[in-house]
Amino acid sequence: MQGLRQAVRRIHGLPRGVKALNRIDSHLITFASKPVESYPNSAVSKRLLPSSRYFISTSAMASLETITQSLAGLSITPAATVSHTETNSPASWREALLTTPSAPKSFELIKTLVYKPKTAKSAVPVPVVVIARDETETSSSALGKKLNLKELRLASEELLTEFFSLDKNSLSVLALTKDTFPKVTTVIDSSIASSSSTFAIHALSSSSTVFLSGKDIVSYVQGLETDDVKIQEIDFQTLKAESGGVAAGVASKSAVKEKEEAKIEGAIQIAIGVKKEVDFSAWYQNVLLKADMLEYYSVSGCYILRPWSYSIWEDIQAWFNQKIKAMGVQNASFPMFVSQKVLEREKDHIEGFSPEVAWVTRAGNSDLEEPIAIRPTSETVMYPYYAKWIKSHRDLPLKLNQWNNVVRWEFKHPQPFLRTREYLWQEGHTAHLTKAEADTEALEILDLYRRVYEELLAVPVIPGLKSEKEKFAGALYTTTVEGFIPTSGRGIQSATSHCLGQNFSRPEMFNIVVEDPNDPTGQGKTYAWQNSWGLSTRTIGVMTMVHGDNQGLVLPPRVASIQAVIVPCGITAKTSDEDRSKINDACDSLAKSLIKLDIRAKADLREGYTPGYKFNDWEQKGVPLRLEIGPVDLAKQQTLTVRRDTGAKAPVALSDIATVVPQMLETIQSDMFNRAKKEYDSRLIEVTNWEEFVPTLDNKCIAVIPWCEVEACEDDIKERSGRAAEPQDERAPSAGAKSLAIPFDQARFTPIEVGKTRCPACGQDSKRWTMFGRSY
Amino acid sequence: MQGLRQAVRRIHGLPRGVKALNRIDSHLITFASKPVESYPNSAVSKRLLPSSRYFISTSAMASLETITQSLAGLSITPAATVSHTETNSPASWREALLTTPSAPKSFELIKTLVYKPKTAKSAVPVPVVVIARDETETSSSALGKKLNLKELRLASEELLTEFFSLDKNSLSVLALTKDTFPKVTTVIDSSIASSSSTFAIHALSSSSTVFLSGKDIVSYVQGLETDDVKIQEIDFQTLKAESGGVAAGVASKSAVKEKEEAKIEGAIQIAIGVKKEVDFSAWYQNVLLKADMLEYYSVSGCYILRPWSYSIWEDIQAWFNQKIKAMGVQNASFPMFVSQKVLEREKDHIEGFSPEVAWVTRAGNSDLEEPIAIRPTSETVMYPYYAKWIKSHRDLPLKLNQWNNVVRWEFKHPQPFLRTREYLWQEGHTAHLTKAEADTEALEILDLYRRVYEELLAVPVIPGLKSEKEKFAGALYTTTVEGFIPTSGRGIQSATSHCLGQNFSRPEMFNIVVEDPNDPTGQGKTYAWQNSWGLSTRTIGVMTMVHGDNQGLVLPPRVASIQAVIVPCGITAKTSDEDRSKINDACDSLAKSLIKLDIRAKADLREGYTPGYKFNDWEQKGVPLRLEIGPVDLAKQQTLTVRRDTGAKAPVALSDIATVVPQMLETIQSDMFNRAKKEYDSRLIEVTNWEEFVPTLDNKCIAVIPWCEVEACEDDIKERSGRAAEPQDERAPSAGAKSLAIPFDQARFTPIEVGKTRCPACGQDSKRWTMFGRSY
Repeated sequence: MQGLRQAVRRIHGLPRGVKALNRIDSHLITFASKPVESYPNSAVSKRLLPSSRYFISTSAMASLETITQSLAGLSITPAATVSHTETNSPASWREALLTTPSAPKSFELIKTLVYKPKTAKSAVPVPVVVIARDETETSSSALGKKLNLKELRLASEELLTEFFSLDKNSLSVLALTKDTFPKVTTVIDSSIASSSSTFAIHALSSSSTVFLSGKDIVSYVQGLETDDVKIQEIDFQTLKAESGGVAAGVASKSAVKEKEEAKIEGAIQIAIGVKKEVDFSAWYQNVLLKADMLEYYSVSGCYILRPWSYSIWEDIQAWFNQKIKAMGVQNASFPMFVSQKVLEREKDHIEGFSPEVAWVTRAGNSDLEEPIAIRPTSETVMYPYYAKWIKSHRDLPLKLNQWNNVVRWEFKHPQPFLRTREYLWQEGHTAHLTKAEADTEALEILDLYRRVYEELLAVPVIPGLKSEKEKFAGALYTTTVEGFIPTSGRGIQSATSHCLGQNFSRPEMFNIVVEDPNDPTGQGKTYAWQNSWGLSTRTIGVMTMVHGDNQGLVLPPRVASIQAVIVPCGITAKTSDEDRSKINDACDSLAKSLIKLDIRAKADLREGYTPGYKFNDWEQKGVPLRLEIGPVDLAKQQTLTVRRDTGAKAPVALSDIATVVPQMLETIQSDMFNRAKKEYDSRLIEVTNWEEFVPTLDNKCIAVIPWCEVEACEDDIKERSGRAAEPQDERAPSAGAKSLAIPFDQARFTPIEVGKTRCPACGQDSKRWTMFGRSY
Repeated sequence: MQGLRQAVRRIHGLPRGVKALNRIDSHLITFASKPVESYPNSAVSKRLLPSSRYFISTSAMASLETITQSLAGLSITPAATVSHTETNSPASWREALLTTPSAPKSFELIKTLVYKPKTAKSAVPVPVVVIARDETETSSSALGKKLNLKELRLASEELLTEFFSLDKNSLSVLALTKDTFPKVTTVIDSSIASSSSTFAIHALSSSSTVFLSGKDIVSYVQGLETDDVKIQEIDFQTLKAESGGVAAGVASKSAVKEKEEAKIEGAIQIAIGVKKEVDFSAWYQNVLLKADMLEYYSVSGCYILRPWSYSIWEDIQAWFNQKIKAMGVQNASFPMFVSQKVLEREKDHIEGFSPEVAWVTRAGNSDLEEPIAIRPTSETVMYPYYAKWIKSHRDLPLKLNQWNNVVRWEFKHPQPFLRTREYLWQEGHTAHLTKAEADTEALEILDLYRRVYEELLAVPVIPGLKSEKEKFAGALYTTTVEGFIPTSGRGIQSATSHCLGQNFSRPEMFNIVVEDPNDPTGQGKTYAWQNSWGLSTRTIGVMTMVHGDNQGLVLPPRVASIQAVIVPCGITAKTSDEDRSKINDACDSLAKSLIKLDIRAKADLREGYTPGYKFNDWEQKGVPLRLEIGPVDLAKQQTLTVRRDTGAKAPVALSDIATVVPQMLETIQSDMFNRAKKEYDSRLIEVTNWEEFVPTLDNKCIAVIPWCEVEACEDDIKERSGRAAEPQDERAPSAGAKSLAIPFDQARFTPIEVGKTRCPACGQDSKRWTMFGRSY
């Protein structure tokens, strides 16, 4: 109980002096952060003690118990009620629910948006409360037109507190009460009432959720109606169509989206459930879950890599190991722990990592004499020993690599594969006699990274240099392969190869020194030139985001653990046992022939599942090629091939399998890459006037500018582009742009005229074309 | 300073109330544990305050500063003085010095033994203080004879405190002062004075060390001599020869040992430096270091696996992965963190692990809301998700494996590969519908483990069952492959495969349940039958201990990253450049031919090293086969082959290489296994009378007894055998014996007559032959 209190106190940032009020349920203890009088909500006042010495916190106020009681008064029984960790975005809310075992397996989020119309200063505003499905697009401009209200803007936190005594993360339809309902305009997404989904709504706290049916939600709001104040049902789908789509999207996308929507309306119910273009974050989570790539884990920011994704990592390991061993790199294993003293040896380096370092302070019941860090990366773990092992120039180069797990305890919202607290990677650490050798190797490794992305994962990347601001903490320079996620229009750092120069080998650091064999006096010493380079399981996330579609994952053949699945078709209740066997046998023998050709094939002979179920199952999991065999195919000695990436179907004679199938897999691989490359290239926009900069980003593109390469200019660009971005929707990307890379291939861009071309951001002389964008 | 005080307090187990006396040097703060009057040592009394309220600890008394001052008075300047962690054995002392950067790279330990002769109760005893090199065998019986003293026994801690106010871990020659010297008989190992080694001696504290030359040690003691009391120099080598060797060794070993000693006297100076039979622990450390297998690391209990050992692990991974994948096991990756709540779900299980769990409590500068454990094993990490994924009997079996790192924060003395705080392993976790399936798999996996040891590492193991007392925490039963280290006569658990039964799947645990397809009512449920199984880098330690010799490591060809090294010979200053090139080219081309045959070969063409240096270098590193090519060989178109395991030399025609070399590697592999197997078998001794039990262990054998299998009997055996063991030497194994395994192959032993054969320990009915022994 004591520990619980402390935990709650910490969550709410309450000082020690504040008293515990009461235990409301097994998870929450009420604390207070404001005088009692400031809480007008009736559900709360029941709990209040008369003395003004007691306080109560806004998020803990709304207990599940209270909510459940008041719903019971309306004859509404929730499908489930759960407590979970605090959430501050749809993504973190969804994750919290996914990691709570007692939550329903399938649900949709309900978003509650509050807009404020333009109001005379003296007048009391009438906010518009929109209750909508999370995936519904709610355009504020279209809504304003419909309601005949001027300049709808998302309401400030102050306004939310004023009206509902709640922050935006705790807000839900349940904030509408007899008291508050008359003071606002309530709009409800018309598709809620008819939906069969179970909907998640916050129980007036961002750390608790009630699950209700669409009908229940509607009847709850209807119960608040008076003769004067009614709710408005709005069909946002129609509204959007009427208003001509979203203003700031990529123009050509709108039509495509509409078409797709029509096409897959039925399919998505059994497939991914959320559209990639509509709610990218939820789509990504669903794809990973439904393809059995990943499982959410009870420790936030940590995930389980299931065999379907881990096998991709094994493929990458095998390929990369072979290449680096040919370069003379050897694998080794260094400890995961590092003492504080050693970790903090390199100042720039540790400054980059210290806020994220996880510390072990206790073993069993004993406190350790000094806390020990878990490696966020291994420079400081390894280099004291490099100093010991490298005694002569003949000990150089030393090239070690390890495949391991590292921990960076990020406090930002985690995302599977892309930003996780523990992740798997390889880290190579090499020491060389000369800078030239180190330079060469850094680029050789970068090219291997490019090939992992392009040749294995069919994901295009652009090799380049990081700006001074974005380089690795402690590096001389950082090279990168920079990826791009078209759906979000954001860049993603995909792998980096750093030249550390002599920053870590200097005498006051790790002192990795040898006699200089090239010094004519024979007395000279030289400090080792070092590189470090890493590639992580982020690869898998980027691949998923780039290639996945509304049916689920799409795997490039080279990393698919099943490249071709064979599905028996056309078997009905009338099919004789003999015919059934014949078809199944043909599938089985086709699989065996393919396996002999080193194709990873599988015949799906599961009983009790329809071919349609199987198609969907393997489509979700992204298997590149489906081969169907039905009675007709058998008669014609053929199989119907279906490509996962395009859906293209073609019959192939069984006798041609040995040539056609390997060819098709190669074609799929290269088509996937070429499509993604074309998309990436089309989103690299040369920008020479500042006015085009933010619109380019808003258009989900990367702005390539002839940059001055001045650090202050980069800070300025980030600040200005962050400020300028129009908040279209509460979840729209609004962060400022940072430099992603200075591409090595400058020739692809319009030549910079020295002394004439100016940096569009600051007007100084341009140096090189540099990619700027929003990023992960 | 405050932190330092707390640390010192914790080391000494002092309560909070005890006051700090003084700061003596940068590492130690004096505390007191006894009244001032009880410390007669003059070096200490300088530091004492008059008030009896102040206390001082025995280990902190002797500061490096004080020691250095008093040595300076004798014109002795130490080679180095270092402070380090507390040590309580020669092994931990050596490790502490190896991990202290400021210690000399090469040193020998000096041991200080104190014996008490039989003395009349009324008389004051005159202890015998022996100052000897750590590797010198000091037999108390031979020494007693020589000094004409009866029944020399190692002195009790009380006696040490009485005479020197020091515990045995802090004792050294420096405890001999003007005060104490006259009260004891001092014996010094005659080989110290003439040795050129740097010797480590404790600076009157087990956490500080002074490095002195042999001469300095002798002159220090000589400075204490008076007309009445002189030191005695004893040549223990001669003493041992005179007394006819050690009484309790394996008889046949003695002669062999003497012979080897003569043979390799010169070699060991440049090779391993310590003999395997003399100081096994130091030998092991040296072999690992000199073969570049391992590096000691700054966090105690954690080690660096260098490429020479890590490549063995990669070989094991590749072999084992292939086998388990064929069994339908898939690789995955689960997080390293586990919440306290989940970790503690299975009571028996957590009781087995909780004292060793490392806890993360802080990230950056923020305390975590609740501490998070680092996995000691992953049952509790994985099984909540098994419950989620296994919804139908069609989801069974589920077979996952992961290669990862786990942490068990042992407080016992760590040993590289054998007992480390972080280690690498694979852990397989499978769930089955029936017990029969689980049983079958547990044994299949155990057989793979046997094959890893026997077929890859050439190490014989005995498959069997663990006793109830020794089984895995939470398992239904544990199967094991049990290894044996002949040099120490100890058993070693080498890998285990557990059937967990339904202990983790039960409803109150993880609730892994499916409908029972075999239940006629269709209503029945069944809980999954689970296995878990693990193999760790301990494999590499066992292989090193079993095969290594006084030249260093001996690698079985199948796991040697270099199987054959080719060394050019006979090149002198007179050799013409042309002839030199010819020889080098022949070596290079031989290497290339072998590589084409898939033999991992390397030509050692390093300039500036003699063939002798290269021979030694590759012998230390254990390369199975050396091929020499000199001018004569070249003329005869042959190469001289030299086997690492036997030293056998034979010329082979270059034209026969393709058949002979692969054959020789196979022969080396099987010879190594057969020799080790013969040795193991010869040390399995059937014991049917209790009287033979302890002598069998003392004879470095395993006692196989027709055991009753009663747990209380096992406790009793451990207690009685521990008590009965004669302490021959302070470092001799004296621990009691535990059961190692109940071998599956019972037929190899004399048949047990049911109702007639009795357990030799307790007299109850025998069940099965069971291996008992001292162990790691």
